[in-house]
Amino acid sequence: MNFASDNHYGVHPRILEGIAEANAGSAPAYGGDDWTKKAEEQLSKVFEREVRSFLVTTGTAANGLALSALTPPYGAVICHGEAHISVDECNSPEMFTGGAKILGLHGPAGKITPAMVEKTLKGFIRGEHDPKPAAVSLTNSTELGTTYSPKDVKAISSLIKPRGMKLHMDGARFANAIAGLNVSPAELTWKSGVDALSFGATKNGAMMLEAVVFFDVKLADDFIYRRMRGGQLVSKGRYLGAQMLAYLKGGLWLENAKLANGLAAQLAEGLGKFKKIRIPNPVQANEVFAVMPRALNDKLLASGAKFYDWMPDSLGKAIADDEIFVRFVLSYATPEADVRKFLALVKELHA
Amino acid sequence: MNFASDNHYGVHPRILEGIAEANAGSAPAYGGDDWTKKAEEQLSKVFEREVRSFLVTTGTAANGLALSALTPPYGAVICHGEAHISVDECNSPEMFTGGAKILGLHGPAGKITPAMVEKTLKGFIRGEHDPKPAAVSLTNSTELGTTYSPKDVKAISSLIKPRGMKLHMDGARFANAIAGLNVSPAELTWKSGVDALSFGATKNGAMMLEAVVFFDVKLADDFIYRRMRGGQLVSKGRYLGAQMLAYLKGGLWLENAKLANGLAAQLAEGLGKFKKIRIPNPVQANEVFAVMPRALNDKLLASGAKFYDWMPDSLGKAIADDEIFVRFVLSYATPEADVRKFLALVKELHA
Amino acid sequence: MNFASDNHYGVHPRILEGIAEANAGSAPAYGGDDWTKKAEEQLSKVFEREVRSFLVTTGTAANGLALSALTPPYGAVICHGEAHISVDECNSPEMFTGGAKILGLHGPAGKITPAMVEKTLKGFIRGEHDPKPAAVSLTNSTELGTTYSPKDVKAISSLIKPRGMKLHMDGARFANAIAGLNVSPAELTWKSGVDALSFGATKNGAMMLEAVVFFDVKLADDFIYRRMRGGQLVSKGRYLGAQMLAYLKGGLWLENAKLANGLAAQLAEGLGKFKKIRIPNPVQANEVFAVMPRALNDKLLASGAKFYDWMPDSLGKAIADDEIFVRFVLSYATPEADVRKFLALVKELHA
Amino acid sequence: MNFASDNHYGVHPRILEGIAEANAGSAPAYGGDDWTKKAEEQLSKVFEREVRSFLVTTGTAANGLALSALTPPYGAVICHGEAHISVDECNSPEMFTGGAKILGLHGPAGKITPAMVEKTLKGFIRGEHDPKPAAVSLTNSTELGTTYSPKDVKAISSLIKPRGMKLHMDGARFANAIAGLNVSPAELTWKSGVDALSFGATKNGAMMLEAVVFFDVKLADDFIYRRMRGGQLVSKGRYLGAQMLAYLKGGLWLENAKLANGLAAQLAEGLGKFKKIRIPNPVQANEVFAVMPRALNDKLLASGAKFYDWMPDSLGKAIADDEIFVRFVLSYATPEADVRKFLALVKELHA
Repeated sequence: MNFASDNHYGVHPRILEGIAEANAGSAPAYGGDDWTKKAEEQLSKVFEREVRSFLVTTGTAANGLALSALTPPYGAVICHGEAHISVDECNSPEMFTGGAKILGLHGPAGKITPAMVEKTLKGFIRGEHDPKPAAVSLTNSTELGTTYSPKDVKAISSLIKPRGMKLHMDGARFANAIAGLNVSPAELTWKSGVDALSFGATKNGAMMLEAVVFFDVKLADDFIYRRMRGGQLVSKGRYLGAQMLAYLKGGLWLENAKLANGLAAQLAEGLGKFKKIRIPNPVQANEVFAVMPRALNDKLLASGAKFYDWMPDSLGKAIADDEIFVRFVLSYATPEADVRKFLALVKELHA
Repeated sequence: MNFASDNHYGVHPRILEGIAEANAGSAPAYGGDDWTKKAEEQLSKVFEREVRSFLVTTGTAANGLALSALTPPYGAVICHGEAHISVDECNSPEMFTGGAKILGLHGPAGKITPAMVEKTLKGFIRGEHDPKPAAVSLTNSTELGTTYSPKDVKAISSLIKPRGMKLHMDGARFANAIAGLNVSPAELTWKSGVDALSFGATKNGAMMLEAVVFFDVKLADDFIYRRMRGGQLVSKGRYLGAQMLAYLKGGLWLENAKLANGLAAQLAEGLGKFKKIRIPNPVQANEVFAVMPRALNDKLLASGAKFYDWMPDSLGKAIADDEIFVRFVLSYATPEADVRKFLALVKELHA
Repeated sequence: MNFASDNHYGVHPRILEGIAEANAGSAPAYGGDDWTKKAEEQLSKVFEREVRSFLVTTGTAANGLALSALTPPYGAVICHGEAHISVDECNSPEMFTGGAKILGLHGPAGKITPAMVEKTLKGFIRGEHDPKPAAVSLTNSTELGTTYSPKDVKAISSLIKPRGMKLHMDGARFANAIAGLNVSPAELTWKSGVDALSFGATKNGAMMLEAVVFFDVKLADDFIYRRMRGGQLVSKGRYLGAQMLAYLKGGLWLENAKLANGLAAQLAEGLGKFKKIRIPNPVQANEVFAVMPRALNDKLLASGAKFYDWMPDSLGKAIADDEIFVRFVLSYATPEADVRKFLALVKELHA
Repeated sequence: MNFASDNHYGVHPRILEGIAEANAGSAPAYGGDDWTKKAEEQLSKVFEREVRSFLVTTGTAANGLALSALTPPYGAVICHGEAHISVDECNSPEMFTGGAKILGLHGPAGKITPAMVEKTLKGFIRGEHDPKPAAVSLTNSTELGTTYSPKDVKAISSLIKPRGMKLHMDGARFANAIAGLNVSPAELTWKSGVDALSFGATKNGAMMLEAVVFFDVKLADDFIYRRMRGGQLVSKGRYLGAQMLAYLKGGLWLENAKLANGLAAQLAEGLGKFKKIRIPNPVQANEVFAVMPRALNDKLLASGAKFYDWMPDSLGKAIADDEIFVRFVLSYATPEADVRKFLALVKELHA
């Protein structure tokens, strides 16, 4: 019963097979191989237009590198106060961008609103005493398991584009957002104004694989230099290319996301039935957040279930002292039996 | 007949098996898994003492991160003028170190000498107008297929340690150096004064794997922060740990290196017999450098052989206008038949 | 009637004289001159112990350079949300520190409290996913014209020192804090746990002059390199040394601060008598903040008075829509007549 | 007899007067004052076209900031191996540019040649493994007292412009170059392809003052942010503006440079008459380099003359063991009597 993170689960068998198949013989290094080229072509198909994409090994690197193409070092990037780039990456965006400011805003349900962005931009009135507003980064699905719809994204992009600002989407769980919203990848990104996307694969079945995808292809012009400088140009590139090919082939990426989202819905529905448990935000992807009695939490952990408590501040409302705010993450690989077993356990322990 | 790079060859089957075996079930993320822990223990065994080691995905990142622990941003790192950190990493060491100066010295046969280091240090006489001499980085085996012996390393470390400087070894081909020198990993590193090592595995049979190994363990104190900030803490860490375990198990790493070095010796011996071909430097690892007629080079390439020409300046001597300086890299996975076939081809084309 | 900034006033005549006197003949460059040496000695006298001090030209540089000695690039610096380093320096601290995180907390009256710092530190529980808590920076006097007493400073230093964190004081208006608190420079700094101080002089009568003063002298070891790298080692150093000597001589710095603080008190007292004007925070240095009717504000500006409106968020309380939050800064050089004239004007316009 | 550096001499009386005159009353801060605006206008007149200029306090900052607008962090800047940006600024260009590579080439007489630049650029054939060639920086007058003529500058700019590279001129001694070449500032800069100039004033009579001047005005678009972030936006900007106004007024800057150059010519002519002294390079500005017997050097220093020995490598030719390579710098403020006195001393000591 491991609901601690989608990172705790392994590599999807079809992706492992893809790696094994790519292993025969010799191949050009540093991304000059066929797997990488084909993976880049497939990404253009997924997004229904020509994109420029670059494979890297971690989401932190994908974010930092993408942002480095969107903001100068004297720029500011507006995001949610709990965004990965704001609080989970140990100043990595600062390193990759050369010192840009990451401005976290605390909006409800893990999302920032156009009004919040607008108010923040209105504060930038002092010329060079402030950093230059350069970009907004939206995490989709968010750190609290919610999603930005194409309409949400457009509302923000239409606000910032007239100011020359760029829009980044941290898609560490992009597949879960797509599956949850039931929209096309094109609709959620470039058709809504996204310039660059961190297209996550690791959490959703790959081994170590993310892509930086540029819709504003001009921004990609020098990106090969940035990736190399960032220590992210892997020498045996075919093993990233092969992962991506298998991940996209036959829609595996969406299949996995649907599975995970479905399990999250199932868990949320089950938990929602208990009187002492509250699900404060809509469950729109593969994460379930809940407020529950501390006593129950302790018993569940003692029974071997794995999940993390979460910063109560992110809830945005006070909880009782004897309550705790917790997170459950579902993976395509989470055994459905574990969800049922867990719900049974809650029922048993929920006095 | 691919002698272009050891990066062109695939993953050793035993390493691929190791990855597949690690794939079952769930495991803690971000290096908290058992494979990573065991890999770190095994590295201590390999080096016959307690070391602190950190797994990363590329050699460029390993170097940059290691150096960031050895030099302040206002420091200088002395290395060979053809060292990877000096000319192959697109300012990556500058990024990771926050702007340290990489000072390349042009020594013979890919090596820098104690006399060159001493002369350089004597030039640092102007206090803060110069950067602070902080470290020396030795590539072993070198970019020209030669090696630094423990005696060579000690000669340099004894020169710089009294000045408070640190010693880094770029071991992208460390296994080839060990195999070529027939010394222990301990002898070539900490017993000779090395403080930190980029322990390469990718070129020698891994998929994407390098380790930063600290012998001066104090330097490792905050390294977890550096690795995270560098975008190099992979979420599914077990796949790095599993690679390293398989790489070290039963001495696979040395076995592979011996194979590659043996093939290089075989190729060098064969090439050395042709009148129009010169092997200017000793072949001490898995690379062979040769001067040959341009006409021969062109015919060999046209016949499908793959190898690169190399900057003639790195030879340190003039070559004739109708000659070319070329590099052959041998891998454990290079078919021996390819070496024989290539030598036969040379014989045929060498008029 | 210029109350816009202490930066709008000129150089004190005695400092200008000091510069002119230093102009005769030749002198060693880059801080090797006698004026600089004597200035450094005088700073040790001012602080009643041996300090290491470094003259620079701007407060932004002083802060960035000081912080670069207190935090690694993967560190976090806690400060007030309106601190100069947080919102007025266009990512300069990020540049000088190599990308450290500046964490602004929004405390009342421009100050952060020990409880706020403690709560923040308790949030750093996720190892390298967070930056490493490295330092706290206190602005004294604060951006809202209040002061941290030695007791305030000690309360914070005693909280962070056991965690290995360092304490910085941004003393752009240090003289005003000293004058306001009527304590010794030693009491307010190293005796209360301050490790490094940006000792401001420009706002208080110098031309362009700040000093970075280290009480933890170990931290100063490599600071000459940092200052040079930061573009802050001026070639004709004597003109910084001469400014500092004149600034300290005969206690000019405190004399100026007392004058400015006195004028602020006079203005605050005067404004406090008007029914429609509120002074929300204690006036403890040379700045007066007030809430007044927008209509009055507009008339005052139209009458030629100069002062800035301030971010209403910094007040921490809502103000009415027809009110405005404004700042008045007093300088030693503000004519007292201007204060009286302004109060008369308010009286006239305050219907 | 101080020939150690032009930095050892003071501020020209007319510049000091300019500062004193600017001291009356209050003025807007941060460059909003009239002196700064007028100084910027005057610079446009000096260069016979609209330029964008930004006043800063040190040459190191001027260079680093200028370069940061010309190169991305993954770029390379080609310069002479003895250029200030290469060996005298303690990694400051690396800090300001975010880690660009400074590539020093060792050309004769302190100059790099088009052929050297061309050869270097031909080496950039490996895509992102190399940094991106971004700019060339020419120091004029050079570190060895020679000058680049407009023809020299054009030869290099015409080589690099088709590659999209930018041209920077480090004009720490720009006035001396102009005076030595007897060309107009326009001819030596934008008419010859210079995009940005570090326009030095400190060495030639100012107190602390340099300007970054952009001829490619697009490059200046965000420069106010860079200057602020670099800690170089001084609060009391009028004191930079006033220095610049006085420096330019009535051609003082050229007058000073002509004086200094004339003294250098006089010294060189005198020294050239001694059999044991050689002047290896043409004396084209305000510096004289000479090879002389060590014994003579020691006696001259013992007699109180001040001048520095110089790295013999920069001479490009071997000198005898009992010889030394030395530098004399002349300032507009060097007493002519000192030159005569020194030559008499040489005559006396030159056995």
